[in-house]
Amino acid sequence: MAEDNVVFVGNKAFMNYVTSVVMQFTTQNAGEVVVKARGKFISKAVDIVEVVRKRFLKDQVDVKDIKIDSEEFENKDGKQVRVSSIEITLVKK
Amino acid sequence: MAEDNVVFVGNKAFMNYVTSVVMQFTTQNAGEVVVKARGKFISKAVDIVEVVRKRFLKDQVDVKDIKIDSEEFENKDGKQVRVSSIEITLVKK
Repeated sequence: MAEDNVVFVGNKAFMNYVTSVVMQFTTQNAGEVVVKARGKFISKAVDIVEVVRKRFLKDQVDVKDIKIDSEEFENKDGKQVRVSSIEITLVKK
Repeated sequence: MAEDNVVFVGNKAFMNYVTSVVMQFTTQNAGEVVVKARGKFISKAVDIVEVVRKRFLKDQVDVKDIKIDSEEFENKDGKQVRVSSIEITLVKK
């Protein structure tokens, strides 16, 4: 159930993700939404959360928790690479 | 005093910042180090923290706190832009 309220940030247009988060809180009536991203999309995820909580849902949602992590794996050249990730949990006030 | 233990992530090479954080904990004997970044450098800041805590200072430091914020200002074309920021506090175990 909780997994329904996850928005995974990637290559799509910025406003797609903003709309998606806003709609989870409004149309879907979610109590919490988790915004997740990896690698270079981490900055974009933070931007999305900030636009949601300071503009579209101003005074309606809070940042409840932020987690960062990373995992190491072998890339196609056989080299070990580490990719970071972030999970930002937004909660309805 | 606390402000001495801040590493602000920008354009410099990745390992510069990693070394800087590690040295604050080791040579400087800091109890806490805050890694700060804005805009596109947020992803890089998370990568730096992950490399420090999972490799260079493995089992020696923890993430104590993560804060995100943003501020809106007028750019040179007179347009309102929002820039996000992150502050990750690392603490010695």
